[in-house]
Amino acid sequence: MNEPGEETAEPIRIGPWRRRSRRVAYANDWIEVLHDEVDRPDGSPGIYGVVHFRNQAVGVVAVGEDGRILLVGQHRYALDEYSWEIPEGGVGPDEPLLEGARRELREETGYEATDWRRLARLTVSNSVTDERGELFLATGLVAGDAHPDPSEDLALRWVTVDEVIAEIDAGEIHDAMTIAAVCRYALEVARAR
Amino acid sequence: MNEPGEETAEPIRIGPWRRRSRRVAYANDWIEVLHDEVDRPDGSPGIYGVVHFRNQAVGVVAVGEDGRILLVGQHRYALDEYSWEIPEGGVGPDEPLLEGARRELREETGYEATDWRRLARLTVSNSVTDERGELFLATGLVAGDAHPDPSEDLALRWVTVDEVIAEIDAGEIHDAMTIAAVCRYALEVARAR
Repeated sequence: MNEPGEETAEPIRIGPWRRRSRRVAYANDWIEVLHDEVDRPDGSPGIYGVVHFRNQAVGVVAVGEDGRILLVGQHRYALDEYSWEIPEGGVGPDEPLLEGARRELREETGYEATDWRRLARLTVSNSVTDERGELFLATGLVAGDAHPDPSEDLALRWVTVDEVIAEIDAGEIHDAMTIAAVCRYALEVARAR
Repeated sequence: MNEPGEETAEPIRIGPWRRRSRRVAYANDWIEVLHDEVDRPDGSPGIYGVVHFRNQAVGVVAVGEDGRILLVGQHRYALDEYSWEIPEGGVGPDEPLLEGARRELREETGYEATDWRRLARLTVSNSVTDERGELFLATGLVAGDAHPDPSEDLALRWVTVDEVIAEIDAGEIHDAMTIAAVCRYALEVARAR
């Protein structure tokens, strides 16, 4: 990455784009906002504000022995809206994604899982962010104590896959990672029938 | 919204959070980054950087008569990575989401569709953004001329639903809106068999 406001000697190629300069417009512990001057694919000049995420996102479809899955409810500050979701969290660069997924499931719900499988790789919101992540399927659940962090005020709920799909269709469950993960898992269940 | 840097007379309740102050840290035509001083759900002080999106996101699963769906390929600047996705775009506050979806499908692919249905409501990346959107299913496709905007350099590809699912499983298709939309549609197809 260039220094704030640095004008690059040679424009940097980003596919059919060229980046002429970059400065850090805002930074906190979670994101860095980069203001770039660019040439667009047709050669015309423009700007691009990129939101760089310091952490990757993980989400876990945790399936109990009766086939129900575990949802976590919380008020999402950025939306100012309550949201029921699969257990999700951020994983820093020094932690493997699977370990981060195990930790988030344990912290938010208290559950450990004996069997883990990757459901999908994700780019979460690619119009202006570089947020990446992975979705996991966790089975063989064993209950324990939850340890949410101070920014979390969480509720838990066990629901059938069909109930989650119905809530997605009704617009009541709307988190994109949750829809992606549960629908991919529901497709697997439907095809196995 | 408060003025930049304004300290509110009374903290504003955001669910179990309280917002004590807000300033605009960065703004362009697409996003506004807001730096808030907050009390967290446990009462401890903290900060929250919120990325406000000026537009909503729409995505379209466009299904041809043979059951294949239309994917758009482009180099995503924010990721610096090529990405195959359903047709997607941003819709401003003055345009109904369905009209925006029709426009994006027409501009990016040239296709019009006679039948439209909502697949899901979305909050795209809710840890720090307020980006919202909707996913649509479009059928009864009629070909026309594409008119991509200057920031787009697009390729088109028709693929079966099974091929898209295989590419999701392989990590080759990773856009969260695309995974959510195609898996929800694939579930509908699987259940109808």
